Amino acid sequence: MSISLTILGCHSATPRTFASPTSQFLSINNEHFLIDCGEGTQVQLRKHKVKFTKISRIFISHLHGDHLYGLIGLVSTFSLYQRQAELHIYGPKGIEQIITLQLQLGKSVLSYHLIFHELTSKKSVLIFENDKVSVFTIPLKHRVYTNGYLFKEKIGERKLIMEQVGRIAEIDICDYQNLKDGKDFLMEDGSLIKNESLTSNPLPPKSYAFCSDTCFNPKIVPTILKVDLLYHEATFLQEDAKLAVKTKHSTAQDAANIAKQAEVVQLILGHFSSRYNDENLFLTEAQTQFKNTVLAKEGLVITI
Amino acid sequence: MSISLTILGCHSATPRTFASPTSQFLSINNEHFLIDCGEGTQVQLRKHKVKFTKISRIFISHLHGDHLYGLIGLVSTFSLYQRQAELHIYGPKGIEQIITLQLQLGKSVLSYHLIFHELTSKKSVLIFENDKVSVFTIPLKHRVYTNGYLFKEKIGERKLIMEQVGRIAEIDICDYQNLKDGKDFLMEDGSLIKNESLTSNPLPPKSYAFCSDTCFNPKIVPTILKVDLLYHEATFLQEDAKLAVKTKHSTAQDAANIAKQAEVVQLILGHFSSRYNDENLFLTEAQTQFKNTVLAKEGLVITI
Repeated sequence: MSISLTILGCHSATPRTFASPTSQFLSINNEHFLIDCGEGTQVQLRKHKVKFTKISRIFISHLHGDHLYGLIGLVSTFSLYQRQAELHIYGPKGIEQIITLQLQLGKSVLSYHLIFHELTSKKSVLIFENDKVSVFTIPLKHRVYTNGYLFKEKIGERKLIMEQVGRIAEIDICDYQNLKDGKDFLMEDGSLIKNESLTSNPLPPKSYAFCSDTCFNPKIVPTILKVDLLYHEATFLQEDAKLAVKTKHSTAQDAANIAKQAEVVQLILGHFSSRYNDENLFLTEAQTQFKNTVLAKEGLVITI
Repeated sequence: MSISLTILGCHSATPRTFASPTSQFLSINNEHFLIDCGEGTQVQLRKHKVKFTKISRIFISHLHGDHLYGLIGLVSTFSLYQRQAELHIYGPKGIEQIITLQLQLGKSVLSYHLIFHELTSKKSVLIFENDKVSVFTIPLKHRVYTNGYLFKEKIGERKLIMEQVGRIAEIDICDYQNLKDGKDFLMEDGSLIKNESLTSNPLPPKSYAFCSDTCFNPKIVPTILKVDLLYHEATFLQEDAKLAVKTKHSTAQDAANIAKQAEVVQLILGHFSSRYNDENLFLTEAQTQFKNTVLAKEGLVITI
């Protein structure tokens, strides 16, 4: 049970030599996701030694270039490497047309099955779940239709209290899974041992919320309440709040305000505008409102 | 009068940390062109200090990703930087739809006028000319509709023979341009001095042919005859000639063969497959047929 987030790129607008646009690699309970895919993401994946084959699902927040323009290249490269596993892409309506048009005009036939899940809902909806993880949209407010994504671990197995289990000779190793699944144990004499006396509660499930791009929007607070890690965009500093309002982005203070209202454990800021030379200003501004804040940085890995 | 070619990327297939896909920046008589635009080209332009605003026309050979996927990003970035000058894009039919679909879905309104010139002809045709340069297509044979491009300087001005011009007191500085344009000089006494005695022939115009991607195709020889510089793709070595035939690419030997037949001055090879560890093998193979060969290399500048 763990969540590991790798920042592949965390700058806004245009890819530059030392500033890659948004992309993140998320491992959660051994499921591996890519979140957003700005131009050059496939090079960033190589640089940070993320195996292409690991990625099973890609979540695109919105159809602006700094979150999208690396997707067609990655989809093509997967095929050049003869990927076999199916790939799921989640994103706004139109994303399928963008990708398939380019593949068709290039007469490219992919080696694998590409499945699109186009999103249109303006409410937070469950878009994927299996026994390890569930993924919900977080409707954001930007210049185009945009979703953040909430990734939640499923509640894990109960933990065996070996001290108790070991005392009962009738309990065999092959019974362990039933106990972990919460079942009581039936003795040969017909008596029942309650599960609670043999196992303890599983670790509380962890959660990660990705929120980019968006204006300051407290409506998302209930959706992201008490997540363990919140990535929130902070394109501007508060001194440029007017620009943030105009372009429907957030300031570092806005992001910290949301983190505080949502009582999250940790905040990570990103999507910094290139107008600022010192990114530490974002940290200082956010920490006046929300102490447990870190700055996104290419190659940063955060493990929960 | 000069041609300067900067290699921004020269590898096939997928962008890697130290291998960028095809893109070249060409300056010819102070006109500045981009040829092909693989993913990451805008970063390569920055790296090699090419001013974005210089580029007036972009020529795309075909709609495969390693020649195209950086275009939408560059078009968008130009607008983020508030480009005003119009931009012309030449490429196969479909290129306009690819770019405009992505701009529309991202609700992007460009700051400048973007003009597409979609190509469909299977013959070599003139697609652009002004008083400095003319550009022709070079129909290539690949898995999709593909054109190379032939860039030709226009014949320059005649050169003043100052020794002769200086002897004639009646010739003023303001007469120089007429002489450079080839006009005879009319003396006050009505006599005529022939231009040939006052000026010498201009430097012979230079030319550059870009040929990628293509199978071995001697039909292009008449079009590129005696160019000063030929870039020809060499994806494979001759030992993998079967692969070259199958994928409609060329070997280093094929490229050298074309250079020899076309009697070009210099050959530059590129589009190397990642399967080879030692790119010098391409050079060795080509030079057995055509001595004046060089290897493309990121950042290489060739001036004619």
